[in-house]
Amino acid sequence: MAIAHAAPGQIVDVQPLGTQLCEARNVALFKTDALEVMRLVMPAGKTMPSHWVKGEVTIHCLEGELDLMAGGHIRRMKAGQLVWLEGGMDHALAAVQDSSLLLTIVLRK
Amino acid sequence: MAIAHAAPGQIVDVQPLGTQLCEARNVALFKTDALEVMRLVMPAGKTMPSHWVKGEVTIHCLEGELDLMAGGHIRRMKAGQLVWLEGGMDHALAAVQDSSLLLTIVLRK
Repeated sequence: MAIAHAAPGQIVDVQPLGTQLCEARNVALFKTDALEVMRLVMPAGKTMPSHWVKGEVTIHCLEGELDLMAGGHIRRMKAGQLVWLEGGMDHALAAVQDSSLLLTIVLRK
Repeated sequence: MAIAHAAPGQIVDVQPLGTQLCEARNVALFKTDALEVMRLVMPAGKTMPSHWVKGEVTIHCLEGELDLMAGGHIRRMKAGQLVWLEGGMDHALAAVQDSSLLLTIVLRK
């Protein structure tokens, strides 16, 4: 994952990547002791295996379409949709189309 | 502010409101003891006076154009841009165009 942390107050583009998506890399936007935000790039067919984190998570689909497996359900997410998960909730992702998403994670000790 | 909290795992639309923006209301998407996410609707000319919160904040402009005053700078934000602020950082907003934004706030004690 590229290290490209934004400074506080610095404006970051998270527009859809469109035709550049397949060459784009994941970007860690910033991380503090309480919060981490990253943009993940998932070309169609890419999966993220089931995992969980201690804190709350939001997943914001910026483009494309992906399946979210969480809490025993599979839900299809499209561009412009957001979901949040409680800490400790197992979840997995599978990109149905070329997708990118904004992942916000609360870091709990 | 309307109370319309989403359950964990529930998919929420945060697409641009477009022509419906001026009739739309702010929506509190969810709130835990550590994180709060809301969608704010700011028609052109609307301002949010300077204020600060204890925890980190992210502001994601979903549509329109707005000025962010923070850290002694004025920065113009457009649809698809995101910024984060440290806890305790004074900030104010002014909508230049009809805008909506996603506000994520870390709740620190």
